[in-house]
Amino acid sequence: MSTEIFETRESQVRSYSKNWPAVFEKASGAYQTTEDGTRYLDFFSGAGALNYGHNHPELRDLIVDYVANDGVTHSLDMNTPPKRRFLQTFEDIILKPRNLDYKVMFPGPTGTNTVEAALKLARKVTGRQHILSFTNAFHGMTLGALSVTGNSMKRRGAGIPLTNSSKIPYDDYFDGDIPDFIWLEKVLEDSGSGVDKPAAVIVETVQGEGGLNAARMEWLKGLADLLKRHNILLIVDDVQAGCGRTGRFFSFEEAGIVPDIVCVSKSISGYGLPLALTLFKPELDVWEGGEHNGTFRGNNMAFLTGARAFELFWSDDTFQNELADKIEQLRTGLEQIAGHVKGATIRGRGFLTGICYPNPDTAGKVAAECYKRNMLLETSGPQDEVIKVMPPLTISSEDLQKGLQIIEESTLAATGNAGEPSRLRPPH
Amino acid sequence: MSTEIFETRESQVRSYSKNWPAVFEKASGAYQTTEDGTRYLDFFSGAGALNYGHNHPELRDLIVDYVANDGVTHSLDMNTPPKRRFLQTFEDIILKPRNLDYKVMFPGPTGTNTVEAALKLARKVTGRQHILSFTNAFHGMTLGALSVTGNSMKRRGAGIPLTNSSKIPYDDYFDGDIPDFIWLEKVLEDSGSGVDKPAAVIVETVQGEGGLNAARMEWLKGLADLLKRHNILLIVDDVQAGCGRTGRFFSFEEAGIVPDIVCVSKSISGYGLPLALTLFKPELDVWEGGEHNGTFRGNNMAFLTGARAFELFWSDDTFQNELADKIEQLRTGLEQIAGHVKGATIRGRGFLTGICYPNPDTAGKVAAECYKRNMLLETSGPQDEVIKVMPPLTISSEDLQKGLQIIEESTLAATGNAGEPSRLRPPH
Amino acid sequence: MSTEIFETRESQVRSYSKNWPAVFEKASGAYQTTEDGTRYLDFFSGAGALNYGHNHPELRDLIVDYVANDGVTHSLDMNTPPKRRFLQTFEDIILKPRNLDYKVMFPGPTGTNTVEAALKLARKVTGRQHILSFTNAFHGMTLGALSVTGNSMKRRGAGIPLTNSSKIPYDDYFDGDIPDFIWLEKVLEDSGSGVDKPAAVIVETVQGEGGLNAARMEWLKGLADLLKRHNILLIVDDVQAGCGRTGRFFSFEEAGIVPDIVCVSKSISGYGLPLALTLFKPELDVWEGGEHNGTFRGNNMAFLTGARAFELFWSDDTFQNELADKIEQLRTGLEQIAGHVKGATIRGRGFLTGICYPNPDTAGKVAAECYKRNMLLETSGPQDEVIKVMPPLTISSEDLQKGLQIIEESTLAATGNAGEPSRLRPPH
Amino acid sequence: MSTEIFETRESQVRSYSKNWPAVFEKASGAYQTTEDGTRYLDFFSGAGALNYGHNHPELRDLIVDYVANDGVTHSLDMNTPPKRRFLQTFEDIILKPRNLDYKVMFPGPTGTNTVEAALKLARKVTGRQHILSFTNAFHGMTLGALSVTGNSMKRRGAGIPLTNSSKIPYDDYFDGDIPDFIWLEKVLEDSGSGVDKPAAVIVETVQGEGGLNAARMEWLKGLADLLKRHNILLIVDDVQAGCGRTGRFFSFEEAGIVPDIVCVSKSISGYGLPLALTLFKPELDVWEGGEHNGTFRGNNMAFLTGARAFELFWSDDTFQNELADKIEQLRTGLEQIAGHVKGATIRGRGFLTGICYPNPDTAGKVAAECYKRNMLLETSGPQDEVIKVMPPLTISSEDLQKGLQIIEESTLAATGNAGEPSRLRPPH
Repeated sequence: MSTEIFETRESQVRSYSKNWPAVFEKASGAYQTTEDGTRYLDFFSGAGALNYGHNHPELRDLIVDYVANDGVTHSLDMNTPPKRRFLQTFEDIILKPRNLDYKVMFPGPTGTNTVEAALKLARKVTGRQHILSFTNAFHGMTLGALSVTGNSMKRRGAGIPLTNSSKIPYDDYFDGDIPDFIWLEKVLEDSGSGVDKPAAVIVETVQGEGGLNAARMEWLKGLADLLKRHNILLIVDDVQAGCGRTGRFFSFEEAGIVPDIVCVSKSISGYGLPLALTLFKPELDVWEGGEHNGTFRGNNMAFLTGARAFELFWSDDTFQNELADKIEQLRTGLEQIAGHVKGATIRGRGFLTGICYPNPDTAGKVAAECYKRNMLLETSGPQDEVIKVMPPLTISSEDLQKGLQIIEESTLAATGNAGEPSRLRPPH
Repeated sequence: MSTEIFETRESQVRSYSKNWPAVFEKASGAYQTTEDGTRYLDFFSGAGALNYGHNHPELRDLIVDYVANDGVTHSLDMNTPPKRRFLQTFEDIILKPRNLDYKVMFPGPTGTNTVEAALKLARKVTGRQHILSFTNAFHGMTLGALSVTGNSMKRRGAGIPLTNSSKIPYDDYFDGDIPDFIWLEKVLEDSGSGVDKPAAVIVETVQGEGGLNAARMEWLKGLADLLKRHNILLIVDDVQAGCGRTGRFFSFEEAGIVPDIVCVSKSISGYGLPLALTLFKPELDVWEGGEHNGTFRGNNMAFLTGARAFELFWSDDTFQNELADKIEQLRTGLEQIAGHVKGATIRGRGFLTGICYPNPDTAGKVAAECYKRNMLLETSGPQDEVIKVMPPLTISSEDLQKGLQIIEESTLAATGNAGEPSRLRPPH
Repeated sequence: MSTEIFETRESQVRSYSKNWPAVFEKASGAYQTTEDGTRYLDFFSGAGALNYGHNHPELRDLIVDYVANDGVTHSLDMNTPPKRRFLQTFEDIILKPRNLDYKVMFPGPTGTNTVEAALKLARKVTGRQHILSFTNAFHGMTLGALSVTGNSMKRRGAGIPLTNSSKIPYDDYFDGDIPDFIWLEKVLEDSGSGVDKPAAVIVETVQGEGGLNAARMEWLKGLADLLKRHNILLIVDDVQAGCGRTGRFFSFEEAGIVPDIVCVSKSISGYGLPLALTLFKPELDVWEGGEHNGTFRGNNMAFLTGARAFELFWSDDTFQNELADKIEQLRTGLEQIAGHVKGATIRGRGFLTGICYPNPDTAGKVAAECYKRNMLLETSGPQDEVIKVMPPLTISSEDLQKGLQIIEESTLAATGNAGEPSRLRPPH
Repeated sequence: MSTEIFETRESQVRSYSKNWPAVFEKASGAYQTTEDGTRYLDFFSGAGALNYGHNHPELRDLIVDYVANDGVTHSLDMNTPPKRRFLQTFEDIILKPRNLDYKVMFPGPTGTNTVEAALKLARKVTGRQHILSFTNAFHGMTLGALSVTGNSMKRRGAGIPLTNSSKIPYDDYFDGDIPDFIWLEKVLEDSGSGVDKPAAVIVETVQGEGGLNAARMEWLKGLADLLKRHNILLIVDDVQAGCGRTGRFFSFEEAGIVPDIVCVSKSISGYGLPLALTLFKPELDVWEGGEHNGTFRGNNMAFLTGARAFELFWSDDTFQNELADKIEQLRTGLEQIAGHVKGATIRGRGFLTGICYPNPDTAGKVAAECYKRNMLLETSGPQDEVIKVMPPLTISSEDLQKGLQIIEESTLAATGNAGEPSRLRPPH
């Protein structure tokens, strides 16, 4: 069937479909199938929106039933049984066991929207206007979120100067050459630094778009402590790293910190449906009614599947423990693959990980080779120098190993070493 | 069943659910039904996201089938059969018959996102940075869209100065006392005006949030001509007024103008699903791949229902003609109701219309009285001084008249005239 | 003597010296004399910095004595006898007789600096950030002052967007077609206008650079009243129109208003020496010490000559009354000259007045013809379409008439009517 | 005589006169004399505006003659003999011997004005909008200059967010703990850094207001090289450190660098008269005529005295060599004094130097003790923790030693060690 209409009618702003021109028709778990019946192993997972794989059967059936029975589909911020169920389940399964007490705001169903809401709230609460964000951060494409984003191509897209924020170095930005927070600590303590005291610092625990830089736990803890001392809010943007992607529900749990504001989206519905949350400590809930709103806040299908996903995956440790094993399998495999390429290093954390190749062109070639081998894999980083390996968290160990094999073959092909023997060892 | 979790867990930023505390469970056409079985006549229509009513059966069944058969749900900007079908149908049924040749961009599924994309593109294409927007405009809640919005409460929410735009008076802002465009024309021609030459002017043909001010067709035409002479782009924000709400598919059709950029969202999926489009003339398609992107651009359920909605409602004139009759019925009825209140005036156009009461408190009281009578009706305007009457476009003439009766009773109750005889006449 | 060094070493940013390439060596009263002994009649008066003519003998002798006797020349904000004398004389001769009680700030010796100080103070006092200024306003070249300036060439010079201010129409911007303040009043009263409530409005009573538009007294009064009602500060920029230029010491006296803040510079020293004042009501004096400062605030020569100029010219009505006669003479003369050119109109007020020619090129040609006839005359307006007639306030009636004759001849020459009989009548 | 008028009429924004309430009447060389005949030794030098002392006799006589003979006083950018003489002398004595080829712009007579002109020009030339400046920088009080300034009290004075610039660490900001330029180099090379490529970096070679931090020569050289590689303009703000204050005419000479733009003011007139220059490489002279202007650009007295000062002090090495000896004497003396206070360190370079005391309150006390001993001395730094020793460059060795003795006594008194024996040794 023709793909002409995509060429003639859709804007050239599209990107994935340029690299992966197939027409995907069906999807299930870790696989998508094209119109002509080709199956693709999906190590991309909707850029993190499909952590439980495509079309999880139990969630799927919930949607079918709900829609077939004329449940309310669209409800803005009106009360519905699915919203109740979502809030209750989120409280019971996610918040309480983690000793978290966050107010839940539905800010519009996208990552950039929850970031915009978080920045507004931080400014309103503190009466301060400046926000600090990190080198190579990515927080979204609307003007406020773009202001705290690092990528220069995306920043230029604004067409106006991006103001009211400054950049500070992310963990290990200088390869360990300088002490943590030396810059941040100094400018906050020096009233002559010219860096205006910020309302908040916004951080990703793993920089999904910025090259899979993963902050160390002690760095996150140090950051949280430092900000607390200076009475500055900490916003964790968990849009990509959250919902289990790094091994636990929130990516910051392991660090033992409690951010003031948390941004969640992507996989929060469990099914790839548009939904976003802005979470914040109760004392920050100073919004006027409707001060931030939006038409698509109340996505009832997403409430339903999201709530059920909490139950399915997070009501006890089973899923998390299995995931830990697969994370181990993935990391080991990637390390074995990286061994083929002198200078290649492993980046990231959990199932948001990848290989950074010394030649920035390599990652793009590896991804292209993967596509030839019927596998979807994205790149990341300011020069797209990292392959970004994001299988569904629900992938089987076999499929995971299969994917690793494809990555290995693709790496060898892309680096001119096709035929070199595999270094992958079967997972224990 | 309890509503406690909404109070304890959800942020106080919510608004509709404060006025309408019922828990809505089922919905169909012009009605929503609460958990306890009460039916509400819905003259709110998801703030314009439900132009074809709740859960249109044919669209509903499409979703059920697609989901049940594991069609790809989430696809970013990858190619899928539903995206193809959406683009093709949009081209065949919407664009071609109207002699429109727009490139289609999927900018993220919200109104504010399509506005942000439009502003970026206008700035990129022209190399200019300033944007003009209108008094009482509403374009969204993210920083760029908020900068071109009028409402002071929402603007203050930004917590920082909103820059790079100025406001100009909307049609009839001075009650006809001064000639159209006298300010705009003068500042554009006067190199000393201090109003920097803008990249674009963004306009709603009816100001849905700003008090249902409806621009006259000749004003819109005059605006388009003026901008063309000055080589300034015209952006029509058709998020609320589009998709048939004012009588034709695009709200600007009647004016005979062709905007350079059009923002569409809300009812474009036909089912209340998150989807947005940014449309622009082909010569403006200067985006780099991925320069504006977002996780939830590719909502396949929305593509499917949207495409089918084009076929069902817009493939010939039938729907539009029936709608014209009901618009006439609505306007007549509202005029009859307004006759009860000295100084009350009719605002708006098509099914985006209402009554402005001389006492700004009246509209809120009328809406509250409607709610008591099991009907949903919103207010609009800087002081919420207008009732906003937005039935589904698919409503029956009987339900429409029933709604008018409730509005009349509520108006009488709210203005202390309960018992006054009805002025409503049966529609012809 | 050579002028080569000006060409080779000085930046091309200079402007006057390009039109008037003579090298001026001596000056006295209304005349400058070049190196080669040519005398020029000066109807430019240092762009308003020389209201009492060049090198007034009594002020000159004060400087000579003071410098010769090693009086303190440079003193920042330290106390000196000349500063005491300046403050005391200003209080006694200028403020008290006018029932004005202003605190005096020395903000740095330029017009743009006093404007920057005024804007800062208004924002600090009100806690608001937006400033409104007028079409065709000119307030200075540093970033804050430039933001409230109208001229597009000068605005572009900033190289960044100019933010935190909007433009409103000056008096008669629409040639009387629309009521005064209709826009300002409406946007201030309409919470949805999108024009953020300003800290202040800054206004020139006559727009010296913007084309000599002179506000009517009732318009100024209306503006002051309107702002008072809305609790918005009124800043009068009297840098060019003040110090007697329009007939009284402050240009706003005739309107019977008391601005909250007044910016003064140019002729305040009486001798063309750099000095500026920011005046404000005592309750606005919320500055911290040194919150706005500058190296050249304490110009003791300027204090001395300024104080003496108050005594010489403003201790009784004599000077003001003589000036009134000469203003009448000038206006009558310009009207007679304008009679030669169909469509020419008189602009401005007092000795800040001129002729606007229907063809925008004419004014430049007239100024060039004047220069040929040994007279200095500037143009003004967004297209330089107005000749700007600014004799010293101390000019003799004979020299004034002589200047008028040159303007008449130049007008005739510039419009191709050389030889047409004079319409000038001797002053009574 | 009374000082009441300063209290009642002058704004509380004044600062020096609060610490030094004397009324200064006469001045000569290194001394000011009050009305009651007390002589003060001036180690403040008009904050750097009086490098050749007060009222240098030869310059004084030039002014007296010029003014007495009705030389043109005020001339904007018109040509005058003094301007010619200034430009020619500047070219012959300052530029040519240093192999510098700068265009000279007169931007308005203050430091902040030359900085604003420099920033505008850098943005215009490069088409970029961002400017980088350094921690603890001070560049002026108008909005553009304030944006690149560090001090938080002064920044807050703006009342609006200061945008379009970011701060980078000055030399040794981290006490040598991290390599030079590690942050700057990284963010410029990393397209994901989020620090937009700047038009320019603006730097002081010694931070006069920011605590007398003096950059090392190799650091300045490294900065210049780095910027050149990245095609970013280097602006040196030599307003305070220039005109001989650090030992040579320009403070950057010793580093062997040639900045793209240089800002000069303060002592450029040689007599404390308002004058400023913006110098830039000829290829940067892209200004339109009048694109940046100002009333007090053409200060003919200042041209005259400035030109003569070039001749008197800079036509050969004599002055510079003598100054070198006195710099040595000053530094040695300050080191000896610092020896009294554990932890006290020497800051600065040349005659822009001082002592940083471990207790931030000490410096203010020392300055107060100096004032009691009839000596003027300022403090500097974000906490005013440094005494700032700025004698006139023309001071005699005896007066210099006398001043050092007062500083020593004051230090001992301020630190509770009055009576401790002097450590000062007579200069060789």
